Amino acid sequence: MTEKTAPSTLARTVLQQCLHARLQVRPPDGESEGEWVEIDRGMVIYICFFKGATEEILPRMVSTLLNLKLCENDSGKYVSVFELPGNVLIVPQATLGGKAKGKGMQYHSNVGKEDGLRLYSGFVALCEKELQTGRGVTIKHGTYGNRQVLQLDTNGPYTHLVDF
Amino acid sequence: MTEKTAPSTLARTVLQQCLHARLQVRPPDGESEGEWVEIDRGMVIYICFFKGATEEILPRMVSTLLNLKLCENDSGKYVSVFELPGNVLIVPQATLGGKAKGKGMQYHSNVGKEDGLRLYSGFVALCEKELQTGRGVTIKHGTYGNRQVLQLDTNGPYTHLVDF
Repeated sequence: MTEKTAPSTLARTVLQQCLHARLQVRPPDGESEGEWVEIDRGMVIYICFFKGATEEILPRMVSTLLNLKLCENDSGKYVSVFELPGNVLIVPQATLGGKAKGKGMQYHSNVGKEDGLRLYSGFVALCEKELQTGRGVTIKHGTYGNRQVLQLDTNGPYTHLVDF
Repeated sequence: MTEKTAPSTLARTVLQQCLHARLQVRPPDGESEGEWVEIDRGMVIYICFFKGATEEILPRMVSTLLNLKLCENDSGKYVSVFELPGNVLIVPQATLGGKAKGKGMQYHSNVGKEDGLRLYSGFVALCEKELQTGRGVTIKHGTYGNRQVLQLDTNGPYTHLVDF
């Protein structure tokens, strides 16, 4: 296995289409059963930032991801999640920055936790801002740093990788 | 967005951990409700081959993927799917070869369908062969060319990308 990530990759997203998705945003403790967010038909965005990433890349990322024609409408035509209109679930997923080394994974290219949280929060906020101008698209998101307990129901995940 | 795939990438895999996963391998028709395969705890391997890929890369791919320490055991330690022991669900996913161009995705780097089927079948066969020497690992797989209707239940998908 070779390292194929160009040094200039600043962020990585994996996109999956769903009929329904459910994500834990607060784990259960002694007093509660935990808290979940969920979306119906739409797109799950798994996201990870690399060292060197700044807020500058966020507008281009959000614009690209929300406008990519990845969602199958009732006629079988592919349209954007805006056009569907569908929903979006954003899942922080630092593991996407991993590189296999021997039998283990290393995460040396990942951005630090503080910067990662700031970039993730900025990405979510920008998606939510775009949503205000959208047509009935709901955006839900996971809690940065949490274990992302996820349940996914698809009619074909139609998995895509988009690096920035 | 820039094109970050090195020209030498021959295969792409995305790996997710699951508690349970269920994949349609024959769609429903007038006479039946369709056919599904399922696994309990283990790893989902989404796989795509690029132009230039040959059977030569399969042994290294299988060895790498089945031995990567990506599965959390009961003690919270990460071990391979062999060591867990867990199960493996292989999902053909040609969309992983896509590159964003404007608002659409292009798949010009993907291997042709015939070669893709041959490589996919070889990958599955090699995983199954490795399984015979393994300790209770079950391997299930999707039907190449089908829509991959998938249901996934995770305790954190722990999504990784491994290119070959």
